[in-house]
Amino acid sequence: MKYPAGFKPSQQTNHQRQVIYGNRGMAFEEQINQSNDYYLKHGVAVIHKKPTPIQVVKVDYPKRSAAKITEAYFRQASTTDYNGVFQGYYIDFEAKETKNKTAFPLTNFHEHQVSHMENCLDQQGITFILFKFSSTNRVFLLKAQEFIHFYRQQHLVNKRKSIPLAYIEKYGIEIQMGVFPPIPYLDAVSQLIKQNNKF
Amino acid sequence: MKYPAGFKPSQQTNHQRQVIYGNRGMAFEEQINQSNDYYLKHGVAVIHKKPTPIQVVKVDYPKRSAAKITEAYFRQASTTDYNGVFQGYYIDFEAKETKNKTAFPLTNFHEHQVSHMENCLDQQGITFILFKFSSTNRVFLLKAQEFIHFYRQQHLVNKRKSIPLAYIEKYGIEIQMGVFPPIPYLDAVSQLIKQNNKF
Repeated sequence: MKYPAGFKPSQQTNHQRQVIYGNRGMAFEEQINQSNDYYLKHGVAVIHKKPTPIQVVKVDYPKRSAAKITEAYFRQASTTDYNGVFQGYYIDFEAKETKNKTAFPLTNFHEHQVSHMENCLDQQGITFILFKFSSTNRVFLLKAQEFIHFYRQQHLVNKRKSIPLAYIEKYGIEIQMGVFPPIPYLDAVSQLIKQNNKF
Repeated sequence: MKYPAGFKPSQQTNHQRQVIYGNRGMAFEEQINQSNDYYLKHGVAVIHKKPTPIQVVKVDYPKRSAAKITEAYFRQASTTDYNGVFQGYYIDFEAKETKNKTAFPLTNFHEHQVSHMENCLDQQGITFILFKFSSTNRVFLLKAQEFIHFYRQQHLVNKRKSIPLAYIEKYGIEIQMGVFPPIPYLDAVSQLIKQNNKF
């Protein structure tokens, strides 16, 4: 991972360290969140990560302090994690990371997420997945059309458990990682918009 | 409130009853969620309510059962509650309900939500507020442009604490409530789209 000049892992706060090492997906998520912050501050796009859906069961209302949730459970998301608007276009995507080097495991994708992507495509939304291969530090944007094609045919029918890197290289767009923003994925989106008048 | 044929309040489950009477905003929220479900199932649009943002502090991982959150707090949303895509257009809105009859209180709107609406407008997203006057059972769509104009000038500068119904009647579009969907707000959005080529 490349850090911006002057920023080293040792300077991270405990919170950041915990986030990065506590959850395999977090580092990439943080890079995307930073990219979205950058895009927002520079008036390029308005794209946010949706909050994690949580089912609240019990809440205490202590006097003179904030309501405290004392029992709650994580729920499975029914959509993708990110959406927003870029130059009038609806943007919708999921971001996933793997340590594998030659293929991307499909176990983390759920049927309802795939259906959601199909629904977004039907409404002409620009829909895609950002894949990060963290061992080799490569990031790709793969259009939902190409992803769904593989998922429906090769995964559900032919029982393949992962997408080969070669497929992602062939049909995706590689994103050169940067600093501001760390993952300039809207460059790839602009490229898609130029290629297609309609989604 | 008009119920669909065969559906009466007494047939609600305890959970629904709790939702409706436990929180003043819930009834309207439920109507919008049902409308969005209807639009999704009929391939009209893909619009979802974002999950409530919650800051998780402590999680227990009991053996052989789901992770249990034991300490968490509600956070203030930094965006509007609803967004999605309709015929290629990015849709973004907030929905609010009041028991007042002649004006809509502005206390429930936060500066960062208003900024978010401005950012969406800058990206040509279709951005608006759905207001429900529950005492008179009237629902209006007010474009974010007209809302922000009032909010910035009359609320922040002139310290008015509410938007008069007359302003909403003049600049908004009244939505005739129905059954399927309960709040057919996309009819009003289609009207806006016909009137403007650009947002």
